[in-house]
Amino acid sequence: MARINASYRKLAAGYLFPEIARRTREFIETQGDITVMKLGIGDTTEALAPAVIDGLHHGVDLLADVKTYSGYGSSTGQAPLREGLAEVYKSYGANVNADEFFVSDGAKGDSANIQSIFSADNIVAVQDPAYPVYVDSNVIAGRTGESADGCYQGLVYMPCNVENGFFPAVPDVKVDMIYLCSPNNPTGAVATHEQLKGFVDYANEHKAVIIFDSAYAPFIQDDSLPRSIFEIEGARSCAIEINSFSKWAGFTGVRLGWTIVTDELVVEDSEPGEVKAMWNRRQNTFFNGASNVVQAGGLGVLTPAGREQTDATIAYYMENARLIRAALEELGITCFGGTNAPYVWLKTPGDLGSWEFFDKLLAECHVVGTPGAGFGPSGEGYFRLSAFGHRENVEKAINSIQTKLKI
Amino acid sequence: MARINASYRKLAAGYLFPEIARRTREFIETQGDITVMKLGIGDTTEALAPAVIDGLHHGVDLLADVKTYSGYGSSTGQAPLREGLAEVYKSYGANVNADEFFVSDGAKGDSANIQSIFSADNIVAVQDPAYPVYVDSNVIAGRTGESADGCYQGLVYMPCNVENGFFPAVPDVKVDMIYLCSPNNPTGAVATHEQLKGFVDYANEHKAVIIFDSAYAPFIQDDSLPRSIFEIEGARSCAIEINSFSKWAGFTGVRLGWTIVTDELVVEDSEPGEVKAMWNRRQNTFFNGASNVVQAGGLGVLTPAGREQTDATIAYYMENARLIRAALEELGITCFGGTNAPYVWLKTPGDLGSWEFFDKLLAECHVVGTPGAGFGPSGEGYFRLSAFGHRENVEKAINSIQTKLKI
Repeated sequence: MARINASYRKLAAGYLFPEIARRTREFIETQGDITVMKLGIGDTTEALAPAVIDGLHHGVDLLADVKTYSGYGSSTGQAPLREGLAEVYKSYGANVNADEFFVSDGAKGDSANIQSIFSADNIVAVQDPAYPVYVDSNVIAGRTGESADGCYQGLVYMPCNVENGFFPAVPDVKVDMIYLCSPNNPTGAVATHEQLKGFVDYANEHKAVIIFDSAYAPFIQDDSLPRSIFEIEGARSCAIEINSFSKWAGFTGVRLGWTIVTDELVVEDSEPGEVKAMWNRRQNTFFNGASNVVQAGGLGVLTPAGREQTDATIAYYMENARLIRAALEELGITCFGGTNAPYVWLKTPGDLGSWEFFDKLLAECHVVGTPGAGFGPSGEGYFRLSAFGHRENVEKAINSIQTKLKI
Repeated sequence: MARINASYRKLAAGYLFPEIARRTREFIETQGDITVMKLGIGDTTEALAPAVIDGLHHGVDLLADVKTYSGYGSSTGQAPLREGLAEVYKSYGANVNADEFFVSDGAKGDSANIQSIFSADNIVAVQDPAYPVYVDSNVIAGRTGESADGCYQGLVYMPCNVENGFFPAVPDVKVDMIYLCSPNNPTGAVATHEQLKGFVDYANEHKAVIIFDSAYAPFIQDDSLPRSIFEIEGARSCAIEINSFSKWAGFTGVRLGWTIVTDELVVEDSEPGEVKAMWNRRQNTFFNGASNVVQAGGLGVLTPAGREQTDATIAYYMENARLIRAALEELGITCFGGTNAPYVWLKTPGDLGSWEFFDKLLAECHVVGTPGAGFGPSGEGYFRLSAFGHRENVEKAINSIQTKLKI
């Protein structure tokens, strides 16, 4: 008599983005022939860079000829890709080696799976608000109790709010696994070296592990801000970093990411090297390597032309962010983020709840955004607008907000 | 103080294929300038079909133009691919619907991850020998005790041997999750309708779930044998099927697979539909969809030209299997499989242990195969040779075995 993993029943409602899609679909069905403008999901919209297209076509051509065909690759990724990524990180000032990169099919999977190599009784801390995958994967793994008032019992929420500049202080209780995302999704806040150093010191002192999501690092415009946690002294013994080409190079549909697990990482009951070996074993058992075609595209990103072309697309999205934020501020709406991250985080006008503002923005302006409450209890009363979009569509959405939103 | 998932420490030795690679590398290093012939890992070697190459290039071209670019897709896969796959299954006589297909990046990941939606205290049964991923993923999930004499405590091994034609009888104890693979890796045996019906009846009676791996179905030459468990009456309420393009179309490096979870599947503590919804939620949380480029290649497989071309490559590999088996039998070695599956399963001559024969074949003939013992205790004394290879390399390996093996 097979039984299910009952932790799934603890999950509150649907995953955020399918829920947004459902509400949007229902609105369209009731309204008939209207066009909805999407500043919701952080999904890339611009064509891939020519250097990436060349890389992908080359990857396909290799498979068309028996002399260059390849089957199973390393589950950790092709060496030139790992080496190229390590070079980029070194240019940031990060202390990492190529053989510490584990190439994957994207940061979402790695973010969800990384918890599986740790004990089920570890205490988990998350920024609040946070990307839902950190929370949901730990609920499913049984590290939480039931959900009540938008919080899961047993999970430590680190509130991010106006007072702390949307980056939390280190926990005042003992925690074992700490998820940090910088530049932050959804708030757009970026941690400073000093702020990250505080967490690294905490983690080393308590033998906690930091899971650092840097998927938006290429959007940092201010060179004084860290793009990798491995720029911070002491991080090699306490941190894991997860990143991808999704936002950097428009790979949201192409799928390519990586996780960095260093040789020096230690936790309470293991020596340096064991956690890295466990992640390697996890990938060897649950994963069969990223697509060879897709990895060829990733190598295209890392060429000088690829770097220049993807930088240009990032600048394009950041100009969208600037336009969105400027327009909202002109309406008197308080905004955060949007300067070193592709997300504008706004305080809902009139103290509306996040989902109330979602429905209002959809009904009045036909614009879809993302309710802050969907990212955690401290997101209530906030709202995320994404800077990913064609300029003309972003401008239409801005114009609709400016002319139709009743504040 | 973070702690690791201590179940990883229960895993016996390394994962099979990395271990083979290590021994082979060491042999080459000690021998100097020799060429090793590989009939080991079941890795495809022939170029992708032209229709697939066209599909992949088309998928890349779509991303080069802002008008056709796409980002995040459905985590369950593109509708035309799911519909095309359902048509293929219907042509086998399988009772499935397109919306029951969950497209993924391959069967290995799905085989490893499927257990995660079930309770940690379920009792697991595996064919012995079996693909190591079924066992290892359940060890890591904590469903077994320690390993002793090649067996994990708490796991139910269903021996496959000469007496039962390498397909087991239904368990005589109560089990909850049953992994079946047909055509079988590693033995090459194919279950009949009657044999599968026995397991379906057992599962329905005990509300157990069958996890059916049909990755080698396209290699079946005898049309009286089932290619999907959903050809069996009653399977919709008790079975999950996992399959991929890896062997069918040479996608071992390209990565594309699928899992079928029906609307009717029930287990002890859930109604029809809940398990399917849970797998959907699992994929939404831990996975972000298969690569759009790769899915375009998958659509190429399903075109009439793609079907014809991939059939031709399968026939090519099956001729390899025939040649390998014929040569071994000429040497007086007892062989199984190789007629409806790309694996020849041989009884080691002289009652050698599997790893002894591995070392002997490597030392005397410079041929790499796969020790049967690596697939489970009942594999001891057997050895797997893979039919995946260029004809000239396969012929060289056969010739080396015929002229150099000292029996």
